[in-house]
Amino acid sequence: MRASLLAPLLALSMLAGCATPALRGTGDLGVVIERATGSVQILDTTHRSSLAKVEGLGDLSHASISYARDERYAYVFGRDGGLTKVDILRQRIERRIIQGGNSIGGAISPDGTLVAVANYEPGGVKVFDANDLSLVADIPAVGANGKRSKVVGLVDAPGHRFVFSLYDAGEIWVADMHDPKQPVLHKFVDIGEEPYDGMITSDGRYYAAGLFGEDGVALLDLWNLDAGVKRALVEFGRHGEKLPVYKMPHLEGWAATGNQVVLPAVGQHEVIIADQNTWKEIARIPVAGQAVFAVARPDGRQVWINFAFPDNDTVQVLDLPSRSIVKTLKPGKGVLHLEFSPRGEQVWLSVRDENRIEIYDPDSFARIGTLPAESPSGIFFTSRAHRIGL
Amino acid sequence: MRASLLAPLLALSMLAGCATPALRGTGDLGVVIERATGSVQILDTTHRSSLAKVEGLGDLSHASISYARDERYAYVFGRDGGLTKVDILRQRIERRIIQGGNSIGGAISPDGTLVAVANYEPGGVKVFDANDLSLVADIPAVGANGKRSKVVGLVDAPGHRFVFSLYDAGEIWVADMHDPKQPVLHKFVDIGEEPYDGMITSDGRYYAAGLFGEDGVALLDLWNLDAGVKRALVEFGRHGEKLPVYKMPHLEGWAATGNQVVLPAVGQHEVIIADQNTWKEIARIPVAGQAVFAVARPDGRQVWINFAFPDNDTVQVLDLPSRSIVKTLKPGKGVLHLEFSPRGEQVWLSVRDENRIEIYDPDSFARIGTLPAESPSGIFFTSRAHRIGL
Repeated sequence: MRASLLAPLLALSMLAGCATPALRGTGDLGVVIERATGSVQILDTTHRSSLAKVEGLGDLSHASISYARDERYAYVFGRDGGLTKVDILRQRIERRIIQGGNSIGGAISPDGTLVAVANYEPGGVKVFDANDLSLVADIPAVGANGKRSKVVGLVDAPGHRFVFSLYDAGEIWVADMHDPKQPVLHKFVDIGEEPYDGMITSDGRYYAAGLFGEDGVALLDLWNLDAGVKRALVEFGRHGEKLPVYKMPHLEGWAATGNQVVLPAVGQHEVIIADQNTWKEIARIPVAGQAVFAVARPDGRQVWINFAFPDNDTVQVLDLPSRSIVKTLKPGKGVLHLEFSPRGEQVWLSVRDENRIEIYDPDSFARIGTLPAESPSGIFFTSRAHRIGL
Repeated sequence: MRASLLAPLLALSMLAGCATPALRGTGDLGVVIERATGSVQILDTTHRSSLAKVEGLGDLSHASISYARDERYAYVFGRDGGLTKVDILRQRIERRIIQGGNSIGGAISPDGTLVAVANYEPGGVKVFDANDLSLVADIPAVGANGKRSKVVGLVDAPGHRFVFSLYDAGEIWVADMHDPKQPVLHKFVDIGEEPYDGMITSDGRYYAAGLFGEDGVALLDLWNLDAGVKRALVEFGRHGEKLPVYKMPHLEGWAATGNQVVLPAVGQHEVIIADQNTWKEIARIPVAGQAVFAVARPDGRQVWINFAFPDNDTVQVLDLPSRSIVKTLKPGKGVLHLEFSPRGEQVWLSVRDENRIEIYDPDSFARIGTLPAESPSGIFFTSRAHRIGL
């Protein structure tokens, strides 16, 4: 009788808390956004497989992700103001809040304790405890003009700081979070018309905001705030006759390779190679369409580029030493995003209209895997946890 | 009766396989070598704590570590030819072999499938399956002189390659591992006298071998093997009257900041700042002693430097923009190694003769933690899994 009782009890205990989830490291995982269905898939880059689908994340158009420093939790920033903490080991939502009405991106502090979200409506930044998503600080984005502004281009920076731009006010703010409940704000006004996105170089030194209303970018040296915001790369948004702009390029996609930054020329079928120290244009390379993301392979030699409609079935590979396009790929319709494995031996592409993810070997350009996904957009590997500004 | 049976059975099942080890991410973990006792401690950088001690790893003087791409397994390369695979989640040795008689370092392939070890005796490189440590390839290091040579400076490189130097023969070999059982060797001879260590820049482009028998370093551009090995930084080992060299500087410690590389001047109380593109000396900074490691903070602004005896109680912080020493710390006797958390908000120092690890905030230079450890030497965080050449 004891034996007959033992078996089901052990089975029960295994089912309840033991058999799943499996013990495993988290360095080779990732998440892909399925924008149409409000779901994400958890990805495994070692086996090039999908481990699970997690649903119920709301409106994920234009969603992005930051990772906890332990690479276990993904913070998903939704377009609808949703902030969802996903446990990628238990493959489920750990916590979810609606923190604003209309949002565009977020960031996590270097020490992993604070998650910040940029809000369009109501315009400002909200800062949450990374553990339980309780509100720590609310920073309304009221510009020098007295009006509340949309916030864009939010990034983390060394020195316990967040940096972001006020679209309507034309300002850049640096928030010092040493006392998380009392952020100290350093405000830069009149930085240019309508900053629409921002990026930080991978060393955490330069913050650049792209300007929708003017040529060039607003550039802030975070090592020398006293020098103020300067204008750079006026070529970025200007080059003779303009074509209609189908999609403003993403600034996060600017390929920073240590010495050079590669960025899409707004409205042109060109990418610009600029010197990352002087922020001057070095060269301009013709490409297959209006570039959206220009992403450097981790070795900084290749830059992979995708394009806006109608060329969004194409990906081109720029070889930086020779400044030439060495490969043109046609992965399928609607290539929205691309992400390299941290040492660069794989690159994953989301092909929205074909409902699949394609995986390539960047050395041979051979396709080494394909996975089904529903309208995939952003792909985010956990290695981002270890990088400044991601 | 059923209730009385239930409780101990559940407790048993929890003890047996469920309660330990805890489910957790691996992005915020690390390992410190305890050289005198042949043990390692598993570290947690989020809670600044030690999770466990693992013993039985043999002779760990001059030991180093590479990580599996999932950040779960640490491969510990021992001085006695031991290769130990440690499961940092189960906090135990997963597998251990003695693969050679006398070894100095190893590397893991970018795709995580191969672990290579550099051997003094018998001189050569052995390549193992990262999963079960079975031998995949044996590369005897027989130089053009027909003699078997010690191997040093083994690193992984993009393109499924390992690169290493032959100390006695004065050669650099590049091993293409596309067919792991049949490595294709590209040999560079007459590269200089007695290469004693090697490093690869963080972009995976340049391999540099320090020369014990001559001035300067032997430099190979892995993007252009046809150009061959060139001599660079002849100032590295030469500067007027030499002091006795207490310890040859570690080349892995060269601080590569994207544009600049900072390296200890052999036998001098100076570090050299060089341009990473031209490999020319830019500046020379006086420091407190003979530098051993010069490690860049991930933001590339600060370089932390430790020293050989008798100055090994001192750490100095070089600010790169101003090219000045901004801080001198005295953490204790026998500072052997230092390691930054991946986003640079913490730096951990092993203080061998004081039997402790010290943790500093690199912004304020405040000590933010201390942990006991037995003769600690190398500290290695799991974020190395994501970096080329580590």
